[in-house]
Amino acid sequence: MKAILSEKKPKAASSSSLKIRELVCELCRSFYNLGWASGTGGGISIKEDGLIYMAPSAVQKERLKPEDIFVLDAEGGIVEEPGRGLKLSQCSPLFMHAYKIRRAGAVLHSHSLNAVAATMLFDKRFKIKNMEMQKGVEGHGAFDTLEVPIIENTAYECDLADSLGEAVKNNPKSHAVLVRRHGVYVWGKDWKQAKTHAECYDYLFEAAGRMKQLGITLEA
Amino acid sequence: MKAILSEKKPKAASSSSLKIRELVCELCRSFYNLGWASGTGGGISIKEDGLIYMAPSAVQKERLKPEDIFVLDAEGGIVEEPGRGLKLSQCSPLFMHAYKIRRAGAVLHSHSLNAVAATMLFDKRFKIKNMEMQKGVEGHGAFDTLEVPIIENTAYECDLADSLGEAVKNNPKSHAVLVRRHGVYVWGKDWKQAKTHAECYDYLFEAAGRMKQLGITLEA
Amino acid sequence: MKAILSEKKPKAASSSSLKIRELVCELCRSFYNLGWASGTGGGISIKEDGLIYMAPSAVQKERLKPEDIFVLDAEGGIVEEPGRGLKLSQCSPLFMHAYKIRRAGAVLHSHSLNAVAATMLFDKRFKIKNMEMQKGVEGHGAFDTLEVPIIENTAYECDLADSLGEAVKNNPKSHAVLVRRHGVYVWGKDWKQAKTHAECYDYLFEAAGRMKQLGITLEA
Amino acid sequence: MKAILSEKKPKAASSSSLKIRELVCELCRSFYNLGWASGTGGGISIKEDGLIYMAPSAVQKERLKPEDIFVLDAEGGIVEEPGRGLKLSQCSPLFMHAYKIRRAGAVLHSHSLNAVAATMLFDKRFKIKNMEMQKGVEGHGAFDTLEVPIIENTAYECDLADSLGEAVKNNPKSHAVLVRRHGVYVWGKDWKQAKTHAECYDYLFEAAGRMKQLGITLEA
Repeated sequence: MKAILSEKKPKAASSSSLKIRELVCELCRSFYNLGWASGTGGGISIKEDGLIYMAPSAVQKERLKPEDIFVLDAEGGIVEEPGRGLKLSQCSPLFMHAYKIRRAGAVLHSHSLNAVAATMLFDKRFKIKNMEMQKGVEGHGAFDTLEVPIIENTAYECDLADSLGEAVKNNPKSHAVLVRRHGVYVWGKDWKQAKTHAECYDYLFEAAGRMKQLGITLEA
Repeated sequence: MKAILSEKKPKAASSSSLKIRELVCELCRSFYNLGWASGTGGGISIKEDGLIYMAPSAVQKERLKPEDIFVLDAEGGIVEEPGRGLKLSQCSPLFMHAYKIRRAGAVLHSHSLNAVAATMLFDKRFKIKNMEMQKGVEGHGAFDTLEVPIIENTAYECDLADSLGEAVKNNPKSHAVLVRRHGVYVWGKDWKQAKTHAECYDYLFEAAGRMKQLGITLEA
Repeated sequence: MKAILSEKKPKAASSSSLKIRELVCELCRSFYNLGWASGTGGGISIKEDGLIYMAPSAVQKERLKPEDIFVLDAEGGIVEEPGRGLKLSQCSPLFMHAYKIRRAGAVLHSHSLNAVAATMLFDKRFKIKNMEMQKGVEGHGAFDTLEVPIIENTAYECDLADSLGEAVKNNPKSHAVLVRRHGVYVWGKDWKQAKTHAECYDYLFEAAGRMKQLGITLEA
Repeated sequence: MKAILSEKKPKAASSSSLKIRELVCELCRSFYNLGWASGTGGGISIKEDGLIYMAPSAVQKERLKPEDIFVLDAEGGIVEEPGRGLKLSQCSPLFMHAYKIRRAGAVLHSHSLNAVAATMLFDKRFKIKNMEMQKGVEGHGAFDTLEVPIIENTAYECDLADSLGEAVKNNPKSHAVLVRRHGVYVWGKDWKQAKTHAECYDYLFEAAGRMKQLGITLEA
């Protein structure tokens, strides 16, 4: 693991840091097995003690090791980098919107086909209602209508940052933003809530697809 | 693990207790992998030597540890609690109906999308017939019609208790109650039968969905 | 493990026997994970040195232990039994048909929903053609029509024995018999071929279901 | 492991060779779990230091051991063979086209039903566009149309070599060739890229099937 770049954070490579790095790797493996991170896509970043731990770009997410993780400060500046040619995730500026605007403690990105299919079934907003699983998303009840904004995809992931930032600001009740034919960004106050939110949203996206196939009205 | 609250049951933290706690954790992990307990939902409780072992509410079910488990007496009163802010499952009063009315030895709750989809394909009762897997549900044969009552969901899980209790009483042949757009409660005389029942019911719910998609008459 | 019942086979509990017992358990776990043996259904038996190793009836197939296995002679008579209330599989007489008529080295039974759905898409015989995977079933080429006879289910599994025996005799090219709304019996000259056959058949059953859903002519 | 046949490569059985052999086994296990290598089908070969490591034909791919692997030279000649009756994969001449024409570092073959279904939805070429996952395939952007040529299957796998070679030559932008009702060949500059390409292509094939089922125009 490379030496810490900033002299101001001499305790970054502590045992706490190692645990977070290992957790990022473990969660990436788990997301790969769920089909959320195939083809080097997807991933998670976690904020701890003011530092953000983030997987590198374009690598096999199910084979990450603790020493592959980037560490950023609260503004997104690189504090520690793994070297060995590894590059910071292009998701970095997108993740920062959730950290800054919504005070997230963890942000994840999934390429799940359930999410991608959901963006093909709806125009500007994914909508579902009357599903118990909605209660797993903070601020929602079983009889609400749960909505997730859908933004258009861009050729380069970094160009998504502005429209994603707008969507985050304009939808304070949502803990996720869908990207057309691309996937979903999901966050929470800590990694446990981010993961729980992601599981609930993915379940609801899958439910919408099943309902469509079974001929059940989506907005019943 | 917290000290035992009741002086009347000094042997609760025995090696038998530890085995049941570990079993609850193992089964919750397994249910998570089956898609029955994503988003902190679902779970299982097991009765042993007059005590009921139950997972806490709103935590990641695949990461439970033996010391996270609540222990209740046969009336549902808390005998042992894990502390650390963990809360008793909202399913607790619902589970108690199966323990009291049906003398169950284990009760589980699943959010499986197969169960949820089944509640969208039928009105008051799920029905299927002529399936070999029905024989895995006690009291049923391969050429019976197997029925599972469907109750309406409520905003708060505790409010389900009355209608679930009614459904349990009024359907003595069923070992399960479906909850609309929510999931299913399943029980058995011990944890093995409860798990077997849950696997058979989930298989039959999935079969009904496939038959619908393949254009096969459900009640053929 | 119980002592050997027959004095004629004093070497049955050899290290070779233990390996076969462990293999039966390992394959049952694997079939459970494939969805072929949920709800205590399904299983496999393997013939080695003239003895047939078979899982007991109505137990969780993914949790079998080597000492749970029954050992039969070539005529189906019990040579060794595990005791502890475990019962011989009701599949036993059905398995014997493949051992006797087709000189099988292993026979398995699966409750896979792919197989069950296949029995709903066809009347007397499952048919598929022009699929590369057909080559995995001995005696078949990629451009043949592969057929599997379908027999009607019976209320008791033992009552299937006669019609299954007829189907085995009358379809010498098939290494499997489907049972309506129940599952499939598959065999091979040894456990590797039986497992390979089962994987190929299940793949072809699943393919038929997908083709139906995608609107592709099944017998194209 | 058999002694090296060629005196010119005395270091073939080095620790580097063992690592590649283990990697081939590990990836085959992983592909089996993804449903790409059931029924002894599918597999991967990797080129390292001018030698090509390849799994044998017609064996259970999830149970390969390092000593089962064939080693070929850059022209496809056998340098090392495992013996014990194991046969070189019939895919061998097909794999060689990608090694020679496209300077691949690894080539894999998958029987995934997603790939097979894709060959039933399109005539001469699989086409999809506007999917973020396309970016995982070298040379493609999110707003391109990604195309994969489809060749007709043949009765014997070796007879595919000519038409596959033609397809490889005539489609320099593609890193894969689909075979009708059979599967797909995928390659990359090294094993990581070949695996990433395979995951991306499989995801896109699955997406096409889902879109068809959901009534969404495939070439939208």
